[in-house]
Amino acid sequence: MPAEAALAERGEPRIVIVGGGFGGLEAAKVLGKAGLEVTLVDRQNHHLFQPLLYQVATAALSAADIAEPIRKILRRHRNVRVILGEVARVDADKRSLTLTDGMVLPYDVLILAPGAAHSYFGHDEWAGFAPGLKTVEDARAIRSRSLLAFEHAEKTDDPAEQQRLMTIAVVGGGPTGVELAGSLAELSRFTLARDFRQVDPEKARIILLEAGPRLLSGFSEKMSRYAAERLERLGVEVKTGAAVEEIGEDFVRFSGEAVPTGVVVWAAGVAASPLGRTLGVETDRTGRVPVDEKLAVRGLPDVYAIGDLARCEDEEGNPLPGLAQVAKQQGRHLATQLARHLREGAPMSPFRYRGRGNTAIVGRHAAIFEQGSFKIKGWLAWLAWAFIHVYLLVGAQHRTQVSLQWLWRYVTYERGARLLTHPDGAPKAGKGPLPQAADEPARRPDRTVR
Amino acid sequence: MPAEAALAERGEPRIVIVGGGFGGLEAAKVLGKAGLEVTLVDRQNHHLFQPLLYQVATAALSAADIAEPIRKILRRHRNVRVILGEVARVDADKRSLTLTDGMVLPYDVLILAPGAAHSYFGHDEWAGFAPGLKTVEDARAIRSRSLLAFEHAEKTDDPAEQQRLMTIAVVGGGPTGVELAGSLAELSRFTLARDFRQVDPEKARIILLEAGPRLLSGFSEKMSRYAAERLERLGVEVKTGAAVEEIGEDFVRFSGEAVPTGVVVWAAGVAASPLGRTLGVETDRTGRVPVDEKLAVRGLPDVYAIGDLARCEDEEGNPLPGLAQVAKQQGRHLATQLARHLREGAPMSPFRYRGRGNTAIVGRHAAIFEQGSFKIKGWLAWLAWAFIHVYLLVGAQHRTQVSLQWLWRYVTYERGARLLTHPDGAPKAGKGPLPQAADEPARRPDRTVR
Repeated sequence: MPAEAALAERGEPRIVIVGGGFGGLEAAKVLGKAGLEVTLVDRQNHHLFQPLLYQVATAALSAADIAEPIRKILRRHRNVRVILGEVARVDADKRSLTLTDGMVLPYDVLILAPGAAHSYFGHDEWAGFAPGLKTVEDARAIRSRSLLAFEHAEKTDDPAEQQRLMTIAVVGGGPTGVELAGSLAELSRFTLARDFRQVDPEKARIILLEAGPRLLSGFSEKMSRYAAERLERLGVEVKTGAAVEEIGEDFVRFSGEAVPTGVVVWAAGVAASPLGRTLGVETDRTGRVPVDEKLAVRGLPDVYAIGDLARCEDEEGNPLPGLAQVAKQQGRHLATQLARHLREGAPMSPFRYRGRGNTAIVGRHAAIFEQGSFKIKGWLAWLAWAFIHVYLLVGAQHRTQVSLQWLWRYVTYERGARLLTHPDGAPKAGKGPLPQAADEPARRPDRTVR
Repeated sequence: MPAEAALAERGEPRIVIVGGGFGGLEAAKVLGKAGLEVTLVDRQNHHLFQPLLYQVATAALSAADIAEPIRKILRRHRNVRVILGEVARVDADKRSLTLTDGMVLPYDVLILAPGAAHSYFGHDEWAGFAPGLKTVEDARAIRSRSLLAFEHAEKTDDPAEQQRLMTIAVVGGGPTGVELAGSLAELSRFTLARDFRQVDPEKARIILLEAGPRLLSGFSEKMSRYAAERLERLGVEVKTGAAVEEIGEDFVRFSGEAVPTGVVVWAAGVAASPLGRTLGVETDRTGRVPVDEKLAVRGLPDVYAIGDLARCEDEEGNPLPGLAQVAKQQGRHLATQLARHLREGAPMSPFRYRGRGNTAIVGRHAAIFEQGSFKIKGWLAWLAWAFIHVYLLVGAQHRTQVSLQWLWRYVTYERGARLLTHPDGAPKAGKGPLPQAADEPARRPDRTVR
């Protein structure tokens, strides 16, 4: 039954959106404003501003500074319902979704915006040794591992072990890898520098590994070179043409050499959400679902895909990159067209992406920005980066808080969130045992010797 | 070998402090300034400002706002070493400590300040159902459980199940219980009020259970009555004389009645750190180690205890309460006396506690403050409470951040840290399954169905 028929029959089509990221949220806002009946499902209760997640991983910001409850963002739209849950499968023939807890959500129109996941290129066994950076938990795990490695180094007298623990390898020379490496270098050189007695954090090795011939392949060569130079000035060892061959508990092997490591972070592979592969349609190499120019999934009636899940091609047939602005524009376009289509029966116009420029940050006073032939780098790009990111944050409180913390960090070189926590089951860093919660015998009786 | 002999022999006595709470940190600062050789051991990398931990548990503040790295606080004292680790045992005859990872720390003088833990009054099986509030992880668990209960309530159509999920029982009517209950009531009445569609968070039941005849037994009766009245005005059901008989996964039983609950929080029993019981000296009913007027542990040479571990009596023979100011004064006094004693051989003077007043907060415009016969309540006490707590926070950045967030909350009724996270192994709320991380198949292969 096409959406129009459903609309006619029940008065209102039920629109379900999967995912509260940049694309899904934008669609929900537009459809919410249009007064349509919308249900948004997400595995998390919050929208996460992922472009700044590396700052949570490197102790500069708190997770709450870049996360906003989805319910709160959509509060004013009484016609939008938010459901915390994970989609187990889509039954396109029955026009319903089933969540992992068994809840069934019928839809007339479905918008899929579940985002991306890590890809370890067929080496899922590396995942335990090299966490990626997608969620708040990921960021906290990387932060805890990094801080813990320095703590363990301080406790040993063996210089080789100290050097191993203070070696952090970042795999992948895209924007996330570059930002993580730069920020980790600043953390060890500036913030932690005077806090240890046995070891000198300034001697920490930060190694950035990129399999391709240069960093930031999405930018021009000139900008790549600039980023590499600035990283090296910060003390980062930039290795291009260095494909990772193996990752273990305490080493990473590339170019035939095994380097002992305290921490390895994965910023290399991205794949679309596994939800795409459950739809029964063909997906591309990275799991993306091909969509037509109206963002409809080919072969599934009234199902649309946007953001990292969608393989959407530009006029030259190249797939659009996995950027927040792509997802946002798609969400806004699709929702606007859908609202007109469902309300007035107007035909849906095709989506056209308008690039607003691309930016990445290396460190203090060092960033790059490109839009077509317009390119800036250095101090000005760094300021622009900061303003753009504060502007894009959701909510005035987050803007104020993040600005304040950045100002503080700029002046003092301190970081506000050097919080090392050990949730049960969190990945362990290095070889040493994690401190345990002996003061809480009652909470974790299984761990307490009586 | 007494400390003086060691000093004479090796030039410097090795002072080891266990615990970086209010007492241990204060002692480390004073001894650090005096130039003595100090090692501070803590299970966490941060000093936690526990008086505001309930605000982390109720989504008002981020953990990093009230946690400061111990290393950073003691950075300027090059003679102070900080070790992240947990003490497994004290070998007083060998004058050494052994950590759980096998590290041995010899000492000439030992200061024990490991703090307190929860006590479930012999019902350790309740711990999994009713987390207490001592650590950052505890606060995050309580926050996640509470927010998750509302999320689950939104997903069910069963009114009884909705009411169960939206019932939060706080066990214990001391300051922590009162503050938690008041803050949870404000969270549901104000912050969450308009964010749900199926359920009305204003109808959440917050039940405060106190076994004794009145709340806040450390305060005067008039103040207890005031606190109870204010809580009731916020919608909290205050039950005194209500001893908890049983806690299960989804209920709490008291006064013969089992109330179905979504969340239970434990704020009732406190016991000294279990480290006390490993010392081989007699401890009191709550595990505290008796100390003499110099804060020395009776029967163990050169071992001192301060803070929640120490049973320290005032002139009338009453034990001092487990307050931050007691620990702080003890730490400062002991360190000052020890420094003079070790440096100049001066005799150590006895410790005298000077009460600086006692305060607790119920909610907006409602707090109490007592010092001897001086008592204030209401608006003025609330302002005083806020200023005192901001003043006592470590670090100008934390003061600014917390003040700013409080101001924001005061004006908007919003809370900045409504972050629901599900670390692996975190306690599950309610009966529904937790959302799992399906987008991260590679990280948690054991959880993914292939």
